[in-house]
Amino acid sequence: MFKRYLPIFTWLPHYHKRLLGADLLAGLIVTVMVIPQSLAYALLAGLPAVVGLYASILPQLLYTFLGTSRTLAVGPVAIIALMTGAALSSVAAPGTPEYLQAALVLSLLSGAILVAMGALKMGFFSNYLSHPVISGFLTASGILIAVSQLGSLLGVSSSGFTLVERLMTLLPNLPTFNPYTVVIGGGTLLFLVLMRRYSKQSLIKVGLPAALADLMTKAGPVFAVVVTTLAAWHWQLAYEHGVAVVGTIPSGLPALSFPWGDASLWRALLIPAMLISLVGFVESVSMGQMLAAKRRQRISPNQELIGLGAANLAAGFTSGMPVTGGLSRTVINYDAGAQTPAAGAFAALGIALVTMAFTGWLYYLPIATLAATITVSILTLVDIPMLRQTWRYSRSDFAAMAVTILLTLVEGIEAGIIGGVTLSIALFLYRTSRPHSALVGRVPDTEHFRNVERHDVETVSNAALLRIDESLYFANARYLEDTVYNLVASRPKLEHVVLICSAVNLIDASALESLDAINARLKDSDVKLHLSEVKGPVMDQLKKSDFLDALTGRVFLSTYAAWRQFS
Amino acid sequence: MFKRYLPIFTWLPHYHKRLLGADLLAGLIVTVMVIPQSLAYALLAGLPAVVGLYASILPQLLYTFLGTSRTLAVGPVAIIALMTGAALSSVAAPGTPEYLQAALVLSLLSGAILVAMGALKMGFFSNYLSHPVISGFLTASGILIAVSQLGSLLGVSSSGFTLVERLMTLLPNLPTFNPYTVVIGGGTLLFLVLMRRYSKQSLIKVGLPAALADLMTKAGPVFAVVVTTLAAWHWQLAYEHGVAVVGTIPSGLPALSFPWGDASLWRALLIPAMLISLVGFVESVSMGQMLAAKRRQRISPNQELIGLGAANLAAGFTSGMPVTGGLSRTVINYDAGAQTPAAGAFAALGIALVTMAFTGWLYYLPIATLAATITVSILTLVDIPMLRQTWRYSRSDFAAMAVTILLTLVEGIEAGIIGGVTLSIALFLYRTSRPHSALVGRVPDTEHFRNVERHDVETVSNAALLRIDESLYFANARYLEDTVYNLVASRPKLEHVVLICSAVNLIDASALESLDAINARLKDSDVKLHLSEVKGPVMDQLKKSDFLDALTGRVFLSTYAAWRQFS
Repeated sequence: MFKRYLPIFTWLPHYHKRLLGADLLAGLIVTVMVIPQSLAYALLAGLPAVVGLYASILPQLLYTFLGTSRTLAVGPVAIIALMTGAALSSVAAPGTPEYLQAALVLSLLSGAILVAMGALKMGFFSNYLSHPVISGFLTASGILIAVSQLGSLLGVSSSGFTLVERLMTLLPNLPTFNPYTVVIGGGTLLFLVLMRRYSKQSLIKVGLPAALADLMTKAGPVFAVVVTTLAAWHWQLAYEHGVAVVGTIPSGLPALSFPWGDASLWRALLIPAMLISLVGFVESVSMGQMLAAKRRQRISPNQELIGLGAANLAAGFTSGMPVTGGLSRTVINYDAGAQTPAAGAFAALGIALVTMAFTGWLYYLPIATLAATITVSILTLVDIPMLRQTWRYSRSDFAAMAVTILLTLVEGIEAGIIGGVTLSIALFLYRTSRPHSALVGRVPDTEHFRNVERHDVETVSNAALLRIDESLYFANARYLEDTVYNLVASRPKLEHVVLICSAVNLIDASALESLDAINARLKDSDVKLHLSEVKGPVMDQLKKSDFLDALTGRVFLSTYAAWRQFS
Repeated sequence: MFKRYLPIFTWLPHYHKRLLGADLLAGLIVTVMVIPQSLAYALLAGLPAVVGLYASILPQLLYTFLGTSRTLAVGPVAIIALMTGAALSSVAAPGTPEYLQAALVLSLLSGAILVAMGALKMGFFSNYLSHPVISGFLTASGILIAVSQLGSLLGVSSSGFTLVERLMTLLPNLPTFNPYTVVIGGGTLLFLVLMRRYSKQSLIKVGLPAALADLMTKAGPVFAVVVTTLAAWHWQLAYEHGVAVVGTIPSGLPALSFPWGDASLWRALLIPAMLISLVGFVESVSMGQMLAAKRRQRISPNQELIGLGAANLAAGFTSGMPVTGGLSRTVINYDAGAQTPAAGAFAALGIALVTMAFTGWLYYLPIATLAATITVSILTLVDIPMLRQTWRYSRSDFAAMAVTILLTLVEGIEAGIIGGVTLSIALFLYRTSRPHSALVGRVPDTEHFRNVERHDVETVSNAALLRIDESLYFANARYLEDTVYNLVASRPKLEHVVLICSAVNLIDASALESLDAINARLKDSDVKLHLSEVKGPVMDQLKKSDFLDALTGRVFLSTYAAWRQFS
């Protein structure tokens, strides 16, 4: 009971020195690597850079106590930051106190929604985000985020949260680009791309151990941050050449905040908060499950909701922004050798220390460097081969994916997700609304029955054996009626219709009504209706209605039994 | 081809004298019976009474040419009138020219939507209105309409389109009731109820033929109209005692109208028009199918969309209101012996004649009489036993029904339908998201496999045969993973897992991803994944992916083949 609600007690009692060493090292690495990221994501959301640091402290600490993943690192992440920016700018102007307050309200709302979903065991909700929708959404978000960073990379201003808005505000300003910014941004970008592609092999070739080479490659962004910051300081690029830098970051821990605001603000942010919660949960749980599987551990989705919810509540009360278990920060943590959530706690303490004493070091960090690190890490989300694969496998899955991508790019993230989910549900309903059905006959000398059109089977002239390959429910109830009526109309000598229910997992009230109608109408034509191979749960439910009493025929246990009766 | 688009040519060439006689009589009866109804429904929508007559002429004529039902009578109906009133009063005040114009725009929009749906063969859309939602919606609408008539029955004013609005505006005015109106309204109500319940048997007892007795019973409303009109005229109840009467109805055919209006009006009415189209279509097609079935005829839902769409377009261009194939007017037509759509055309001509020359006769017709006829006919929609039956059969169908009723009563018709449909889809997805699955074993000495928990069957220690009772798609993909992982975790000696796919009718891209993941993870644990009884269409699709190449095990044609392999 205790362990279930405070998962920290599953591992803390067994904590020992070796684990401590590994976790401390991982915590240190994460601290260094995650700071530039956190600043960048806060800026992406239109918030002051320091908010990204605040949101990496208490939220991560709380997740340590409440989360079930051993390696998940919680804090601001790219997609949630983009969604946050879109949501906030619909209720306030960036840079105003109202915008900051809205960010806190959004965090609290997301936190409350996640905790409520966890308490109600609604982790299954994330299942309705189908794979094509998630994949399309990530691809489109990657493109959106990359485009959103173009302005920072070139030193020109742009704004907006759809592709069109971004490009329309960016293009007219292009001629005002800042050459120093372009050099820093473009240089960092090139450096990071080359590092990703070649450095690991090169370092291994030079004789470094693979693990160290990997770590050094991953440390590329930190290296770029240090070099460009020093350059900006040395040549005073900000003052003398107009290069945008992070500037003064207030030092000290965040003050406690109680962003009550008015009811209309909460209402306006409710839908965005729901989507942010859901997307954040999906990103975090997918990540957590993947890594847990690698180490044969398990995570509990419902407890994850509680942990992430608590993290967001903490962000809302400590001047932060919506957070979740992040792709890149978690991979850093995992690769750095984190063994338990203590590593995350150490990283949180490290970031707290930086926030208290060393924010001055970040003054000259160029915004373009941050933009380059975001761009490189986010472009891994863009998965073009997946588009081709999905097209090959299923046109309707591809349609859901394409609509998600287009809507996300053109109308924004909310429209993309809602549109994609709606379409995948609609397509599923459409597919199940016209169930495959087959007249079957007996494979000679067996008890097996197969489609008369595909196999050479024995049939009976006065009885039709009709196999329905779908659960019967409102969307296909009328279709079932049509199928049976057409069958009867085309076979005047028919005396018996047997519905084979081996693939029928559910009969709802609408389908029951249709079965009643079919039964009555066949009765008028002197045709008897029978069922066969009805599954236990379906039979139990049919017994609660009057249908079985009214049924003109019998319920056969097997199709073979029906066959013997009529042949 | 010709016949398909103009169904009138399926019957007109074979028309003969006997049919003409029957149709003429039916047309006459319908003319007389339907006029009070049409006036009443126009008033229910907040429109002038004459609009109900206009909407019964050209729309019915066009349907005669384009519809596929032999007996459907098209015109204003109660539920559509209520929905029309709710939609119009959200954009204009009753009694203003804008309100009238909006009614025409609404008709045109509904017509265009119906025609478009017909052209796109989208008749199947009505399938998503599940039986519990329709039934709940009809019950709630019946209550709403009955309550909306209370004011007219008592001679006090009330307004609004939800139960609360109606009651809140009605109750304070109750003390101002008009005793003469109460006598007329209450008397008519009592008379009609008694007629419905007892007159037919009594008339048969007195020696009348059953058919005539039935017709006389049905003519009750006409009798009530005649008597109360004469009474109102004789005692001049309108002027001397404040009884509301129909008053002056402009005579002459409707002028052609071209209600273009501005774009914002069209936009505001788009969603209501979609719902009105859908509900009207469902009412009309259910009715048409039921009656066609009685006479072994068939109707074509997609052509019905065209016919009803043309009728609504006609209503929009001739000062009418949204129309559909009505429950009560169709029953009158059918019972009066209509043989072909010509009966409807004759009724339309009859109503046109009345509109041209005899509207003066309707001057003294008390509104309370109309309210009483509506109330009696509409209360047949209220189906309380269905509530109980549905509760017994399925809690989730009952939930959809209850939510539809409550939302319709409290929030209005649109909210009721949208809420009900959404909930029924959500519940269906929820049910299919946690599919029933069963470990099966062999029934001794057969090729049959049954649930190990329910039957005494033979199992193999190193292989698990898992039957999945649902199509595999995004909503249950992760659940499938959990099921398999839990199975493997609980049986350390397992070497083979066979997924029996006899009830799997679909594997979408998300489920394919999960199967890939399961396959890879079982491989890590040295467990092989096999499939059995994969259906043809599913196998065809799997072949388009790389899954079958990666599969560690085999695809068995039958579970028995897998069994022989492992035992």
